[in-house]
Amino acid sequence: MFDSVCIVGVGLVGGSFGIAIRERKLAKQVVGAVRRQETINAAFQKGAVDNATTNLEEAARGADLILLAPPVGQMKSLCEELLPVVKAGAIVTDVGSTKVEVIEECAPIFGSKAHFIGGHPMAGSERVGVEHAKGNLFENAMWILTPTESTPAPELEKLKNLVAALGATPIILDPETHDQLLAVTSHIPHITAAALVRLFNSTHDDHEIVSSLIAGGWRDSTRVAAGSPEMWRDICLANAEPITQNLDSLIEELQKMRELLQEKNSDAMRDWFDEAAVTRRRHGYFSRH
Amino acid sequence: MFDSVCIVGVGLVGGSFGIAIRERKLAKQVVGAVRRQETINAAFQKGAVDNATTNLEEAARGADLILLAPPVGQMKSLCEELLPVVKAGAIVTDVGSTKVEVIEECAPIFGSKAHFIGGHPMAGSERVGVEHAKGNLFENAMWILTPTESTPAPELEKLKNLVAALGATPIILDPETHDQLLAVTSHIPHITAAALVRLFNSTHDDHEIVSSLIAGGWRDSTRVAAGSPEMWRDICLANAEPITQNLDSLIEELQKMRELLQEKNSDAMRDWFDEAAVTRRRHGYFSRH
Repeated sequence: MFDSVCIVGVGLVGGSFGIAIRERKLAKQVVGAVRRQETINAAFQKGAVDNATTNLEEAARGADLILLAPPVGQMKSLCEELLPVVKAGAIVTDVGSTKVEVIEECAPIFGSKAHFIGGHPMAGSERVGVEHAKGNLFENAMWILTPTESTPAPELEKLKNLVAALGATPIILDPETHDQLLAVTSHIPHITAAALVRLFNSTHDDHEIVSSLIAGGWRDSTRVAAGSPEMWRDICLANAEPITQNLDSLIEELQKMRELLQEKNSDAMRDWFDEAAVTRRRHGYFSRH
Repeated sequence: MFDSVCIVGVGLVGGSFGIAIRERKLAKQVVGAVRRQETINAAFQKGAVDNATTNLEEAARGADLILLAPPVGQMKSLCEELLPVVKAGAIVTDVGSTKVEVIEECAPIFGSKAHFIGGHPMAGSERVGVEHAKGNLFENAMWILTPTESTPAPELEKLKNLVAALGATPIILDPETHDQLLAVTSHIPHITAAALVRLFNSTHDDHEIVSSLIAGGWRDSTRVAAGSPEMWRDICLANAEPITQNLDSLIEELQKMRELLQEKNSDAMRDWFDEAAVTRRRHGYFSRH
């Protein structure tokens, strides 16, 4: 499907992308651009790349597809570095968790030289690093693509076909809808999980007995809080407005329950929990039991 | 260990208790007191009881151990009904998720006739009903017992031995410590999960595409919200003060993050997430990956 694919940032997602492309023979060669020398060996060991280098320009030169998988905050400067070497007509896409800001910042850099199309594979884990990469990471996953009015149809089609060839389902959304949806289903739940852990930290010493008394509910509710602090900081900064809005709505929900509890309003409390239970049950248990 | 054990409320927890006692031959007979005729058949089918009846007095008469496993809110009236028939010197214990209120309400009812000792097995699931009961539910679980100064040592010892015989680890806590700890590790996470689902409900239509875009993080963060609305309403009412206090602290944490985000205080945001990540990683991943 492609002659040469360049992956900038060979971690869990970038590495899995490389393995999947190579296993499925979707490109003649896959070149990785990494920051640290150690990652080169790890990427080879996992079969994620044919070549890898710490020299970004060398890795990207001549590629007809560039996948950007670095932390969100570095996207703009990377694109500026790429501009001089990017092949004319190449597709540049990313895997970041927010889309409006990255598209506003990156698409204009390439102008008409290359086509920046935002992307977000809904796959991953709180584990990081190419050591955890695997070729089936995207199988049965949704992969959101966020073209804009200036995205040409053939390039979008080519990217959709690649996503499908990796076993994922391409979903087209506009960038604003993506960021609003993800604020509610991912970013706010992450902030909340971290706040729950911080509450625990501030009220209980971390000795063994308390730890042994933490039930499965807490572990599930707070699992995502183990994720990378830098990554989540960057996501919040990049999606500040939808997150602030929805954080306010969440705080209102919590204050509503506090108020019902003060009033001992038994019926309204049951209804408040009931609406949540009915909706949640529609979305599958995913229980450990 | 006991001649006759009476289980009031043969659901997931009560039923599992019955199965475990019968499998391990820890009592000569297990009698279930249930509200609905249908539960009698289901309890027999699961092997949870030797006898079962909808007549509470009949079930409890002569029992030397009574386990109370009904919804939290019914505990007091049940104890009043039990008083006339409870065997002198019997142990009465419960499995409720809060302890201060239930002990204040129930222990005085029995006076010196029987010994009420609060209990809370840290086992269960969002599934309800005796159909999901299983004899190994308490294996490797913590089982909190909350004696007071009027609890006689031999009766506490007897209950500890029973808990251990079921494969669980007995943990002694005072009722206030229990309720504070559970507010933070269970009740507040539950309210938060429900609030997250309500936020989702208020911002997104429940059509198929949105549903398919909900990632594993959201499912984990909100799993507990599927639990029984009546049960959680009763838990909140019974533990209102610690919950209100800790809800305020959680809201403060969320407002703190909102403030840092408004200020674009990148370093402080990273630190805020980092404290949570470091603590959460100490408590095991429990990841589906």
